[in-house]
Amino acid sequence: MTADSSIQPRSANPLLRALGGETVHPAPVWLMRQAGRYLPEYRALRESVPDFLTACYTPDVAAEITLQPVRRFGLDAAILFSDILVVPDGLGQEVRFEAGEGPVLEAIRPSDVAKLSLARMNAHLTPVVETVTQVKAALDDRTALIGFAGAPWTLAAYMVEGGGSKDFAAARAWAAQDSAGFGHLIDLLTQAVVDLLRRQIEAGAEAVQLFDSWAGVLSAEAFRRWCVAPAKAIVAALGDSHPGVPVIGFPRGAGFLLAHYAEATGCAGLQLDHGVPLDEAAALQRSVTVQGNLDPVLLLVGGEAMTRQILAIRAALGQGAHVFNLGHGVLPPTPPEHVAQLVETVRRADRKDAA
Amino acid sequence: MTADSSIQPRSANPLLRALGGETVHPAPVWLMRQAGRYLPEYRALRESVPDFLTACYTPDVAAEITLQPVRRFGLDAAILFSDILVVPDGLGQEVRFEAGEGPVLEAIRPSDVAKLSLARMNAHLTPVVETVTQVKAALDDRTALIGFAGAPWTLAAYMVEGGGSKDFAAARAWAAQDSAGFGHLIDLLTQAVVDLLRRQIEAGAEAVQLFDSWAGVLSAEAFRRWCVAPAKAIVAALGDSHPGVPVIGFPRGAGFLLAHYAEATGCAGLQLDHGVPLDEAAALQRSVTVQGNLDPVLLLVGGEAMTRQILAIRAALGQGAHVFNLGHGVLPPTPPEHVAQLVETVRRADRKDAA
Repeated sequence: MTADSSIQPRSANPLLRALGGETVHPAPVWLMRQAGRYLPEYRALRESVPDFLTACYTPDVAAEITLQPVRRFGLDAAILFSDILVVPDGLGQEVRFEAGEGPVLEAIRPSDVAKLSLARMNAHLTPVVETVTQVKAALDDRTALIGFAGAPWTLAAYMVEGGGSKDFAAARAWAAQDSAGFGHLIDLLTQAVVDLLRRQIEAGAEAVQLFDSWAGVLSAEAFRRWCVAPAKAIVAALGDSHPGVPVIGFPRGAGFLLAHYAEATGCAGLQLDHGVPLDEAAALQRSVTVQGNLDPVLLLVGGEAMTRQILAIRAALGQGAHVFNLGHGVLPPTPPEHVAQLVETVRRADRKDAA
Repeated sequence: MTADSSIQPRSANPLLRALGGETVHPAPVWLMRQAGRYLPEYRALRESVPDFLTACYTPDVAAEITLQPVRRFGLDAAILFSDILVVPDGLGQEVRFEAGEGPVLEAIRPSDVAKLSLARMNAHLTPVVETVTQVKAALDDRTALIGFAGAPWTLAAYMVEGGGSKDFAAARAWAAQDSAGFGHLIDLLTQAVVDLLRRQIEAGAEAVQLFDSWAGVLSAEAFRRWCVAPAKAIVAALGDSHPGVPVIGFPRGAGFLLAHYAEATGCAGLQLDHGVPLDEAAALQRSVTVQGNLDPVLLLVGGEAMTRQILAIRAALGQGAHVFNLGHGVLPPTPPEHVAQLVETVRRADRKDAA
């Protein structure tokens, strides 16, 4: 921070301008899971490391993976290649990724929370921070660098369940039965996320996204307590230490409670899943920059169906602050050419608007 | 239908009165998956049959399972014990239930649709209809009998995916890529659901619920096409053949689009998942009878947390037409005593209101 940090030069980057509340034409565009298995250059590089987590923890590899889609498609942002589960892994709850099976953890019980260690995590995640430094050095000013972390509820859900789940009933039951004990876990994770995001920002991340991928399995009451309150604390803590760095919240499946989430947390950007209708997205856009929300399945199939929906999204959201993105991550069988087509369509749509 | 079917006697049953738009005290109460694994008498009876589908297809067994929770808890409705996947199984796409794994089907491709047979299904599902007849004969007038079917989108999702899935990407991709072909499958399933529900009604079902359990994975646009339009057609077809039999729609995870679903389909009741906030539920209740929406996790843990939320739900929805239910099915590890406590709490809450 400089002495007059309140006087900030207007950013050259369209993503940061949009997150600052500007209407930007053409809309900045990046895609959740834009680095990954659908890219042949990713699959080739992944052969050089034994497993997924090793890729996340090897800065040269992770930085290269982060840059691959930016180079190929000229996207407006790079997002750190990592995984939300590096946090429990760093805290001492070991995570493995089984091929085709998703993450596997030794499920924790309340008595295990005391064994988790923030100091251990901060040491363990140094390679993730080093990746951010390397990516930042490789990017020009026009391309923003986004850091990220899983939100406390979603991390806790995997940690208690021991992996993915349809409904995360074990984690939800613990939260309902012993809210004080579960609250300790959430508090620890909130601090862990703040620590990790601060280090990403110090290493060069210019915006951060908070992924609450399993917010949608919660009751409205539990959502307020376990998603909104921690996100609010994280936004406030980052605002204290690093004012002006926008936080994009992604409470996936929050539906009716999206407006409450945006208002209560004070996030600069709100990632919308593809279940959010465009008229509701436009209503949300009156108070927050919205990001989204093309169905990844339309990117998978490409062609006219995709083009039509891209134009509909931009028609609905083009009069306000909008970052073009998907409603969820790129699906692995997606043809890379469809991503090129998406980027071109977003940019051409807005050139026509301007004409 | 009688000659003067327009003159209907006021039903003695609280569920049917609530579905007719009446504010009923105490609120009628039943629970999704109220018959099932959490009941010791269910587990004992299931030992007499080799597998889950055989239980569904053996009227003596399925009728007894249907009646078990009604007898034990004095609920206001029995719901047919069956499974949504009897429809694809009947159509000729064989379904197996692997213990602890969920349903497994041989995934269909577009060329397989022509092999599915409504005539085969109607023959195959005769035992399901016979179960309804048996249950009806065993119930008194005070307890309503609810039939059900899976909605076309959710059935298609399992049929195309070959089982459960986090996001049903294969089914969604087919729908996006070849909407005419996928539309043929949806049309066939719409007719199958109409056929099955008509037979359930003729055998004695007094209301029917349409379970669109995976509506929430769709984009808003796909939801309108693959969930709303078929549900509208089903409600209309049943209204033609069996006027006055209420249909309860359950587009799980539909969020913002619940009001549209209720209005467009003309369903008499709208089942709400536990993600719907109570103020939004009360707003929906102005145009449709709402059913729900206690988090099943609160039933699992019981006690004060459950009681508090039951009272909050009734406080929010007690001034209009409301059927008390969960937001999703009973979880298998739920202690049966908690169900008794739920029923007692709902009824006592309203006695206090009346006093």
